[in-house]
Amino acid sequence: MARDERSVTPQSEDFAAWYNDVVFRAELVDRGPVRGSMVIRPYGYRIWELLQADIDTRIKATGHQNAYFPLLIPQSYMQREAEHVEGFAPELFTVTHAGGKELEEPLVIRPTSETIIGEMMAKWISSHRDLPLLLNQWANVLRWEMRPRMFLRTSEFLWQEGHTAHATAADAIAETMLALDLYQDVAVEIAAMATVPGEKTPGERFAGAERTFTIEPMMRDGRALQAGTTHFMGTNFAAAFGITYAGESGTDELCHTTSWGMSTRMVGGLIMTHGDDKGLVLPPALAPYQVVIVPIGRGEQGDMTTSAAVQLAVALQSAGIRTHVDDRPQLSPGFKFNDWEMRGVPIRLELGPRDLAAGTALMARRLSYGQPDPGKEAIPIEAAPGLLVAELTEFQSMLTRRAVDFRDDHTVTVDSWPEFVAAVAIGWALALQCGEPACEAEIKAETTATPRCIPLAGEPEQGPCIRCGKPSAYGKRLIFGRSY
Amino acid sequence: MARDERSVTPQSEDFAAWYNDVVFRAELVDRGPVRGSMVIRPYGYRIWELLQADIDTRIKATGHQNAYFPLLIPQSYMQREAEHVEGFAPELFTVTHAGGKELEEPLVIRPTSETIIGEMMAKWISSHRDLPLLLNQWANVLRWEMRPRMFLRTSEFLWQEGHTAHATAADAIAETMLALDLYQDVAVEIAAMATVPGEKTPGERFAGAERTFTIEPMMRDGRALQAGTTHFMGTNFAAAFGITYAGESGTDELCHTTSWGMSTRMVGGLIMTHGDDKGLVLPPALAPYQVVIVPIGRGEQGDMTTSAAVQLAVALQSAGIRTHVDDRPQLSPGFKFNDWEMRGVPIRLELGPRDLAAGTALMARRLSYGQPDPGKEAIPIEAAPGLLVAELTEFQSMLTRRAVDFRDDHTVTVDSWPEFVAAVAIGWALALQCGEPACEAEIKAETTATPRCIPLAGEPEQGPCIRCGKPSAYGKRLIFGRSY
Repeated sequence: MARDERSVTPQSEDFAAWYNDVVFRAELVDRGPVRGSMVIRPYGYRIWELLQADIDTRIKATGHQNAYFPLLIPQSYMQREAEHVEGFAPELFTVTHAGGKELEEPLVIRPTSETIIGEMMAKWISSHRDLPLLLNQWANVLRWEMRPRMFLRTSEFLWQEGHTAHATAADAIAETMLALDLYQDVAVEIAAMATVPGEKTPGERFAGAERTFTIEPMMRDGRALQAGTTHFMGTNFAAAFGITYAGESGTDELCHTTSWGMSTRMVGGLIMTHGDDKGLVLPPALAPYQVVIVPIGRGEQGDMTTSAAVQLAVALQSAGIRTHVDDRPQLSPGFKFNDWEMRGVPIRLELGPRDLAAGTALMARRLSYGQPDPGKEAIPIEAAPGLLVAELTEFQSMLTRRAVDFRDDHTVTVDSWPEFVAAVAIGWALALQCGEPACEAEIKAETTATPRCIPLAGEPEQGPCIRCGKPSAYGKRLIFGRSY
Repeated sequence: MARDERSVTPQSEDFAAWYNDVVFRAELVDRGPVRGSMVIRPYGYRIWELLQADIDTRIKATGHQNAYFPLLIPQSYMQREAEHVEGFAPELFTVTHAGGKELEEPLVIRPTSETIIGEMMAKWISSHRDLPLLLNQWANVLRWEMRPRMFLRTSEFLWQEGHTAHATAADAIAETMLALDLYQDVAVEIAAMATVPGEKTPGERFAGAERTFTIEPMMRDGRALQAGTTHFMGTNFAAAFGITYAGESGTDELCHTTSWGMSTRMVGGLIMTHGDDKGLVLPPALAPYQVVIVPIGRGEQGDMTTSAAVQLAVALQSAGIRTHVDDRPQLSPGFKFNDWEMRGVPIRLELGPRDLAAGTALMARRLSYGQPDPGKEAIPIEAAPGLLVAELTEFQSMLTRRAVDFRDDHTVTVDSWPEFVAAVAIGWALALQCGEPACEAEIKAETTATPRCIPLAGEPEQGPCIRCGKPSAYGKRLIFGRSY
């Protein structure tokens, strides 16, 4: 393949084209045969597996248990909660035939599992001793997409969905916040994202929820991405499905439920948070290969450096570093360097005959930030495991700092409409707003920006609405931005 | 709940009723709202997760990579391989509507993924350098079931499906055998089953395969269960989907492909291999809790033993033992003992005030085999972690020995029809058979027994067919048995 076919469109030229170039050329995904469907290839799936393992550990550590519920849901279930069906009806896939016959009642493929899990919770909960019921499911869900986009909006995606039932509203809200904290920790500690946790405005709530919370990171084109949401359902689903427990006085009380989900969408968020014009940049915590070693030299020299590379890889793997040796004989070192840069590997080691003679390897970082580009650096092979563990830790925090700085540089506190328009054209605006749906709709129509969240950390503040001048709602500034 | 409601039907009285009692009362599963669907509850799902983790490690260690392919497959794909469509057509779920509109082409929910993965392999493979392509997917699949049975036959089940492509038939057959070995190791080492690896006769092959291999364990009612199968497809799917590579002479050559799957069915096999009239018996490698500690005593004494139980649990967990303390205040110790026996926990520790004063705990094994029942045994708390690690190892191998002995005791080498009929009524028959489909059908009609496999380890042998007297085929004896 010629060099120019492999290079990606610059972000500044066309961010959407850059994104597509990266996901296909790095072999993260491929298009499936059905409109809007996505094949996750091994390199992309490994990122998801690493993310999944981390989320799963945190979910179990907070007392939740995994379970599995059926893919197919009777159509009538979806209709029991009025807002829920209104929100999801346009996105449903419907099964009408099975085993060669037409079904008596059509079945829908789960777009989310509140209804079927609600039905089972009603069966399993009878007394306060059964509460809280803390469940989680890893599953595929399907929602019809008119304008699909790999990882971000596909007709099928993979996720976890937490579903819990509690005796009191306070317990359920505490759970909603616990899940939000969990997502925030995953996003910051593992994905190195600069996410802002906050509450959604009523217009942006989950269909059927009383309150919805979100974590929102900023992508490198200044847009926001909803990266994980948690919902307090109040008693809406409990009433629709009869999820009750015997209260102290012996009467049946409705449970308070929650749900929360994080999906393969995070992989898209990762790409758009850290990537650059060379391609992907992966945080070490989620990189399939954290270090790639490229042995250099032909013939006998090549055999020698390859065997040294394999030996070094074993030493690095023993230190817990995911290491790969690129020994493809038909490709030049230069091609390999570009290839692994495009595929976002944090650290590359070059191992030529001279390096080997000197007992060193040439280390190249995928990215430097906040300090002059250090170029390549010779490191002693003997000390490589310890040095690289430290390098990877530093790389991970460097990416977080870079994401925080980028977000902060593109977030503006605004008090006038022209300032607002300018801010959301390239990033986020922190603004006061009246909370009226009509005013929110006007803002969206003129700028495509929407309220991303009411940040949990925001200071109390009141004043005139950025758009219409009426008194502000929410008691603090909202984040407005364009979004995915 | 009264005691009699909790006890299970004896196996000897009604094995199917025993099975149902166990899966529901041990809270492994619940019935879903759609016919044939299954909800896997946390206790059952944890068994699956432990099995899954073990299989996944082995799959990765043998060089396979995980990926994910779409759930929905264009109906036309299923029709490209003639035998494949004939085999699966009666079991398909069909999606006709999405996003509120009728689809141009109906989509089927994957019953298995050879077709969609074949389509992608064709796209990804161009030269011999792309071979072998070694993929695996963890996924849900759906097959319409007229007579559903929890874990064994449900409309939806969870599994892994390996799919690989190779340059030569020899490479593909080696892969088919490697996967069979992998399954055999999982079944024997982890599930403590006495599986027999062998080849399927033509009538029992996977739809579209040239050769199918299987591992077959014997259940405690003498029936066989197909616990994992591996398939050599020859070039059938490669021809149907255009999976080719540029050969040395530059011409396009067809690849040789394989597929292999192991599913949640294994959990059913586990239950029917080890369970008894008290309920489940779980091999330690797959037990959600390997040890349950029941603190005994009321009031202050109860507080003391509970706190000692929690301390002991921490010590056991540090030694890698999955431990649970049953501190439910409203239940009696006797109830708890029965409950955890029914739920199959390998080892129970009782901790009363006198035990505590003596620095010991009373250990009870779920099952003894091949030696007199040791009853309860006092063990020193200080030494418990080391002792219990050894006990669990012994418990695991005891279960394997018990399964092997049971299978061997119920397997008979037969050379006459009356012997055959008697053998398959309670177990397996090792018999010579002519290989004629009509004769096989007659055997099935009269005894419900089918050829389970041609055991890999069988000695060469020829003679008259057990049923019709014609010369035998296959060059060795087959295992015949009734099956799930």
